[in-house]
Amino acid sequence: MSASAPERIAVGAGSAASTAWVGSGLLRDAARYLVSQSGRFLLFSAASAHAAAEPVRRALGPRVLLDLEIEDSEASKTLDTVARIADAALAAGLRRDDALVAIGGGVTTDAVGFAAAILLRGVAWNAVPTTTAGMADAAIGGKTGVNHPRGKNLIGAFHPPAAILVDPAAAATLPERDYRAGLVEAFKGAWIADAELAARAAVNLPAILAREEAALLDLLAGSVRVKAGIVASDPMDSGRRRILNFGHTLGHALEAAGGFGRLRHGEAVAWGIAAALEISRRRAGLSASDAAAVRVTLSRLGPFPEPDRDPSLLAPLLSVDKKTTSRGLASILLESIGAARVDESVTPGDWLEAAAIMTLS
Amino acid sequence: MSASAPERIAVGAGSAASTAWVGSGLLRDAARYLVSQSGRFLLFSAASAHAAAEPVRRALGPRVLLDLEIEDSEASKTLDTVARIADAALAAGLRRDDALVAIGGGVTTDAVGFAAAILLRGVAWNAVPTTTAGMADAAIGGKTGVNHPRGKNLIGAFHPPAAILVDPAAAATLPERDYRAGLVEAFKGAWIADAELAARAAVNLPAILAREEAALLDLLAGSVRVKAGIVASDPMDSGRRRILNFGHTLGHALEAAGGFGRLRHGEAVAWGIAAALEISRRRAGLSASDAAAVRVTLSRLGPFPEPDRDPSLLAPLLSVDKKTTSRGLASILLESIGAARVDESVTPGDWLEAAAIMTLS
Repeated sequence: MSASAPERIAVGAGSAASTAWVGSGLLRDAARYLVSQSGRFLLFSAASAHAAAEPVRRALGPRVLLDLEIEDSEASKTLDTVARIADAALAAGLRRDDALVAIGGGVTTDAVGFAAAILLRGVAWNAVPTTTAGMADAAIGGKTGVNHPRGKNLIGAFHPPAAILVDPAAAATLPERDYRAGLVEAFKGAWIADAELAARAAVNLPAILAREEAALLDLLAGSVRVKAGIVASDPMDSGRRRILNFGHTLGHALEAAGGFGRLRHGEAVAWGIAAALEISRRRAGLSASDAAAVRVTLSRLGPFPEPDRDPSLLAPLLSVDKKTTSRGLASILLESIGAARVDESVTPGDWLEAAAIMTLS
Repeated sequence: MSASAPERIAVGAGSAASTAWVGSGLLRDAARYLVSQSGRFLLFSAASAHAAAEPVRRALGPRVLLDLEIEDSEASKTLDTVARIADAALAAGLRRDDALVAIGGGVTTDAVGFAAAILLRGVAWNAVPTTTAGMADAAIGGKTGVNHPRGKNLIGAFHPPAAILVDPAAAATLPERDYRAGLVEAFKGAWIADAELAARAAVNLPAILAREEAALLDLLAGSVRVKAGIVASDPMDSGRRRILNFGHTLGHALEAAGGFGRLRHGEAVAWGIAAALEISRRRAGLSASDAAAVRVTLSRLGPFPEPDRDPSLLAPLLSVDKKTTSRGLASILLESIGAARVDESVTPGDWLEAAAIMTLS
């Protein structure tokens, strides 16, 4: 099958510039799209991403200096894992102009990207996301990092990959639950900034769920475009970029409350969005029809497991959000589909109330 | 004693901007110069820097959220130490707009600065160097990091401190050997880029060695100005900034060959400069009188312990230099006092030859 030319999307600018390629057939053409100044690559692939790693490995051939499989569970997203990646890279003779390649889900791209950020004070890396969550979100925008016992992603760096390859074929073997949970992030991009994309993807939802490539590509390319546009306006995540956090303020707390095992990240975000809809209806003028449209799509992406809504469990988890400054929580509200804003007046109490009444049906 | 106004030196620009303050009395006025968006500070001080930490602690008073003493030996400059700093900061309730303060020598500012780089994907920090090496060099320019079993500073990030306080009083209790070794870095700055400063400091050397504040301040401010100028021209260390590495290509290898215990960093750099003089005489047109002038100053800063010159020991250590790209070593040669250049044609063999004949007398 001959692939059509991939779409090229510039993410960021200057020293924080990435090029995202979105299209079919990118994996086997990886040698054309992955970037290394020296021409040498160090591959780090998730055990679960074997099918996607194989064509990349073949495409790069003798230019692969190191080829290592790594753990990709949320529990392995630690500074220790990053240290092991760094050890292996240095043992292989890494030089400043070599590049790492991360092939896997968000855990893999976050950890390998962070290793690239701190090796020799920063070497180049490339992201080959193999999950819908990674393609729509995790691998785009330059955030890398690992978890800490006190919270997710509390240790990390901004270190954008030189290239990001978004090939839907990489998600072909993704388990159904992960496939659907990841799509929450893709839709999130549409809801906060692109009403047309949201409408089109809602219509295409059956085809997307059937994994039809054209429909999936349209949604993924759209959400990458949304993220690229927002990142461009706020590369260091101090202002407008925070709207990408839609559904995440409560979502992170729900995820942590379940010990990160009960809910997938995207599932927790779906519940977080459901709660944000409640608050947005009351405080951001969100219409009943827009709230219903978001809820319908979320319910068709699900059903998602019920989260723990216990306020005494959620309250302390809300206050450790990375986005918290001394001014308070930065909450994201939806004014209408396609238009989100940051609101610093929403209190943890408001979120706990919304958590008690939120629904996805 | 009333202090004259400190000199303000801008280092870097944009998101990588630091302000260096150089003057007497800065420690007890720390509240005026240290930067924190929230007004809250987390202090990390080297055990050996107790005398300098005390006035800073008093100046900040109730704004100190955490006050922790840390190890400051080269052996403790590890990712584990950074993880412990991060643990303590998160346990204390660090928020994105808080700032860390590092009080100590290069080990402390490098490790604490690196912790700041990776906490919450980067929080602000301030550097209060308490050694001549830190004041002249280590704390300026945004390089942070830790050592790896395979080499020094192989793990790290560019993350400039918001403010750097260079108060000669902080070095008052510095052991003589460290005081003198650190001055090598200060003179290095003069030799590579400021002939007038080099001439003035050579004349003032007796006063500098007697720790007279005015003479020391002049040299330190000059070397900070040199470094600031060079960093401004090349913030990410990919071009001209490499001339700051004068004496370091062989110096790092000599330091590593002694297991980092035999030679102080500045002492190893002094020997590295001695070797660079040999190569510069032959290949960069350095005059005999300029080479002699540098050597005389180095010998008056010493005597420094003899390094291990065994080529079989040094050869493998030369090739792991962080500055190495696939093109080869980036060596720094001196054309004349005040003018250095990068030379990629010098081979490890050239350095081993120079190491065999270099002299500091």
